[in-house]
Amino acid sequence: MARMVVIYKTPTDPGAFDAHYFSVHVPLVKKLPGLRGYDVSRGPVLTPTGPEPYLVATLHFDDRVSILGAFASPEGKACAADRRVLAPNDADVQIHLFDTADV
Amino acid sequence: MARMVVIYKTPTDPGAFDAHYFSVHVPLVKKLPGLRGYDVSRGPVLTPTGPEPYLVATLHFDDRVSILGAFASPEGKACAADRRVLAPNDADVQIHLFDTADV
Repeated sequence: MARMVVIYKTPTDPGAFDAHYFSVHVPLVKKLPGLRGYDVSRGPVLTPTGPEPYLVATLHFDDRVSILGAFASPEGKACAADRRVLAPNDADVQIHLFDTADV
Repeated sequence: MARMVVIYKTPTDPGAFDAHYFSVHVPLVKKLPGLRGYDVSRGPVLTPTGPEPYLVATLHFDDRVSILGAFASPEGKACAADRRVLAPNDADVQIHLFDTADV
């Protein structure tokens, strides 16, 4: 399995962020080819070692190659473009994508 | 469900990190009360918007309250103490814990 973890800093207008995220971004993400699951943090994100982010979104795929394929597709390009509405600067968001192995 | 996502920066000695992580830290984490699953990134962690971390560990629990309970236990305190061997400074690691909701 593989995951894409997207960590958003607190936006200047959380209400506008939420409205755009749930009404525009979620439907775009759900169109990604190969997407196996999608969840977002609910309530506060506790961070004992640093500043608290606003939202953590997790996209689940079969493997990292599938994630790269998804974001090379037209649907993926639409997601990436729309992400820039939510987080205009790269410093507003952290994106990590990786294969996972149970330990 | 809830997740604890631990993102480690590249350590000064990756070999020593790996040896300690898999032989000492993993067994400690597996003793956490309420732990439902545990996986780590395998291979590179791609980060299109920033510096690449070394390892992402994900601990799965029923809910955020269970995570807080786990880390208040003796087993959790042992994990937290051992984490400081892997990441001596808070800047070496990011820890996020949150409830999740499917979207």
